[in-house]
Amino acid sequence: MDQKVERLFREKNLIFIATVNLDGSPQLTPVWGDYQDDYILVNTAEGRIKHRNVLNDSRVAVCVVAHDNPLDMITIRGKVIDIISDYDYKHADKLSKKYMNLEKYPFKRPGEKRITFKIKPEHVYVLPEISVNDG
Amino acid sequence: MDQKVERLFREKNLIFIATVNLDGSPQLTPVWGDYQDDYILVNTAEGRIKHRNVLNDSRVAVCVVAHDNPLDMITIRGKVIDIISDYDYKHADKLSKKYMNLEKYPFKRPGEKRITFKIKPEHVYVLPEISVNDG
Repeated sequence: MDQKVERLFREKNLIFIATVNLDGSPQLTPVWGDYQDDYILVNTAEGRIKHRNVLNDSRVAVCVVAHDNPLDMITIRGKVIDIISDYDYKHADKLSKKYMNLEKYPFKRPGEKRITFKIKPEHVYVLPEISVNDG
Repeated sequence: MDQKVERLFREKNLIFIATVNLDGSPQLTPVWGDYQDDYILVNTAEGRIKHRNVLNDSRVAVCVVAHDNPLDMITIRGKVIDIISDYDYKHADKLSKKYMNLEKYPFKRPGEKRITFKIKPEHVYVLPEISVNDG
């Protein structure tokens, strides 16, 4: 993927992910994630609504906007091709470093099992440069 | 709606809106909008994918995160109950003031017709305060 996409995922920008509920309505949440080897990796927990949804329909939409420039953004359509156990918090810890500069994931809850969605991008939309006019 | 919701929409936070494509997959974009008289008002243009989508299925999900605190966020499920012409850019101009401190909408394009989605919130989820642990 191009450098802009790499950069938006490398910076500590929240990732927004939309899934489809069982009744066909849209579902939307902000998540932590990153980008590795051409896949988007999104961290969540077992049993969340988005987990249930992608087990039923793997299609997702992802949007990342630069925290310092709302015109610097991408939206990606893709599919969750794998759900990886993160029970040892390895990915969550890595993302805690990225987003909060902490060595360990700070929001652990009893019984919670973290998982990672491995998302294959199928269509990437990069907002073109927009010219401001006087109109 | 509660004060937190009012504040998140009053601040110049981007609004993320998810719709459902005709093929049932999710669609997601950041937009400008505000909150008036218990309705979310989102500005877009005729012919955009999200416009086509809500004409087919009015259900949307909306997410707003405070620009200075990712834990300060809401997600809302709702329905587009009206699509209001904004051909005179009145709403777009108002939002330009909110987001860019400009008197006039600066991104006008030839032939573009702005519209406003009037969204009735049906379920509001406010992220509870999360405690950080040492685990």
